[in-house]
Amino acid sequence: MTQQIALKSRPIGVTTADNFETRTVDIPAITIGQVRLMAHTFSVDPYLRGRMSDAKSYVAPFTVGEPIMGGVIARVIESCDDGFKTGDFVLGMLPWQEEMVVTASGLNVVNGNIAPLSYYLGILGMPGLTAYFGLLDIGKPLKGETVVVSGAAGAVGIVVGQIAKIFGCRVVGIAGDDKKVNYLLNELGFDYAINYKSEINISNAIAAACPDGVDIYFDNVGGVISDAVIAQINYKARIIICGQISLYNSTRIPVGPRPQTALLKKSALMQGFIVTNYASRFPEGFKALVNWVANGQLKYMNTTYYGFDKLPEAFIALFEGKNLGKMIVEV
Amino acid sequence: MTQQIALKSRPIGVTTADNFETRTVDIPAITIGQVRLMAHTFSVDPYLRGRMSDAKSYVAPFTVGEPIMGGVIARVIESCDDGFKTGDFVLGMLPWQEEMVVTASGLNVVNGNIAPLSYYLGILGMPGLTAYFGLLDIGKPLKGETVVVSGAAGAVGIVVGQIAKIFGCRVVGIAGDDKKVNYLLNELGFDYAINYKSEINISNAIAAACPDGVDIYFDNVGGVISDAVIAQINYKARIIICGQISLYNSTRIPVGPRPQTALLKKSALMQGFIVTNYASRFPEGFKALVNWVANGQLKYMNTTYYGFDKLPEAFIALFEGKNLGKMIVEV
Repeated sequence: MTQQIALKSRPIGVTTADNFETRTVDIPAITIGQVRLMAHTFSVDPYLRGRMSDAKSYVAPFTVGEPIMGGVIARVIESCDDGFKTGDFVLGMLPWQEEMVVTASGLNVVNGNIAPLSYYLGILGMPGLTAYFGLLDIGKPLKGETVVVSGAAGAVGIVVGQIAKIFGCRVVGIAGDDKKVNYLLNELGFDYAINYKSEINISNAIAAACPDGVDIYFDNVGGVISDAVIAQINYKARIIICGQISLYNSTRIPVGPRPQTALLKKSALMQGFIVTNYASRFPEGFKALVNWVANGQLKYMNTTYYGFDKLPEAFIALFEGKNLGKMIVEV
Repeated sequence: MTQQIALKSRPIGVTTADNFETRTVDIPAITIGQVRLMAHTFSVDPYLRGRMSDAKSYVAPFTVGEPIMGGVIARVIESCDDGFKTGDFVLGMLPWQEEMVVTASGLNVVNGNIAPLSYYLGILGMPGLTAYFGLLDIGKPLKGETVVVSGAAGAVGIVVGQIAKIFGCRVVGIAGDDKKVNYLLNELGFDYAINYKSEINISNAIAAACPDGVDIYFDNVGGVISDAVIAQINYKARIIICGQISLYNSTRIPVGPRPQTALLKKSALMQGFIVTNYASRFPEGFKALVNWVANGQLKYMNTTYYGFDKLPEAFIALFEGKNLGKMIVEV
């Protein structure tokens, strides 16, 4: 018997604790090709909100009554597969469940000697690879260019800004509180950071932050912040659509100024993507990120909630901007 | 003494005859490096609307009180430049004026034996090159893909659709009257054409026209037509922002459904451009277009107004959708 968190109902607008159900489930007997795992660290990510809805998107929706699935680091406590031994730590797309028996294929061993285990959910995992491929493959940063990143203090944003610095760009971060702004400026070396919640006029704030205009906009949030940034783009700007967290809770189609005119006037590009588009190049990205982390050129930060039962609270907190860096839950 | 049409006042919203002034001007004496020209055919293009405003764009605004400038084919009637002789036909960015003395540099001789002279303003000129580079360089059409083009019966749209057919695509055109729809279907071989003005629900009409979704959208018009097309895009769709004629007369910032969410969900690209970005590759594009015209693989159509004084009327008619193919004025 173990604890599991399932989707009780689909959120309408903002997700609440009532949308989750914590329940006790049986653990099946282990068979050949399977491992028994004890969850160690859960990844808590904005994209899960999309899977909780039944709207068509790039990943299939969760089923009501079934467990939430996400990135999980777990310890092998029993193995019936030659690829894994007791005591290994593995990363997989796994249910929100404390103990589980799962098929071994699809799991990868992670090495806590290279970096803290949690990094495999963050800077060395999907968020880090998202930053790497989005910024470099779509953004193609050049030395001296101005890069603006929204959601700058989030799991992806802090990596984007630091990689942009490695490439010699001037980096402007947009975040939602002064603690985040201070972290971006003082710990990560961003050139400029804006607390959008304390600005009376976000358009003026972004214009002031970008006197030479915006060459690359890495967008994690969408909405009015994006409107203000798009108004400042330069000729041949690149806008990377990585997330739209400000809109994920919308219950109607979000409306705003049409960006097409700006794209036309500036011969600018706007490109949506999902990191799995780059799956064949993950080894390249992982290698680069590991090196930068080892060099000290990339720093990382988690916001950690402790206890399996804190998963729903951590998820809800993500949409309230309570995370600095990657949101995780350690058991 | 000759006739000239100048910008009398900047249009607010829809352009009217009052925004133009026809006046008589002196012609200066000709000097070394100059030619005397008699205008033959004027190009009448939507982008001129942008230059009539003083908003910042990719080309500088016209000055009130100065002549409108655009693509003009003219006959050399006197030459003080070794590159040109009397009787040559030349293409240049020239004032809306019947007779003129201009610097010869910047003019190009056009050959009426290769194609009708007017084609150098259309399929072998900027509109043709716009279609060629926008569709092929940004759109990258693959055989069997669905290509939707708005403003499909315009100077650019008819070339886009025909090139897409050459590349083996299924082509859906959107236009504003039944005559245009019939032309696209019966003369140009489009697979499907929609008269958006006669559709009660444009979203349903586009969904019905594109049962396999939209891989490439070549957008000349913007606005609600684009909203409906973007709702149907496929994974890794390419949206080419070539024009936004439905918005050019807006007096406030156009608002609509934000396209970023669709771009994100579909890993889709939206790219604005102006043909002069491809100036270094114009010879490649010109060569391809000339060959396709010679082969009979590309057809072209002008809507011609006759008489210099008809220029303002032809320009205004463009925004009323009265052109089938390229709008020109022959003197």
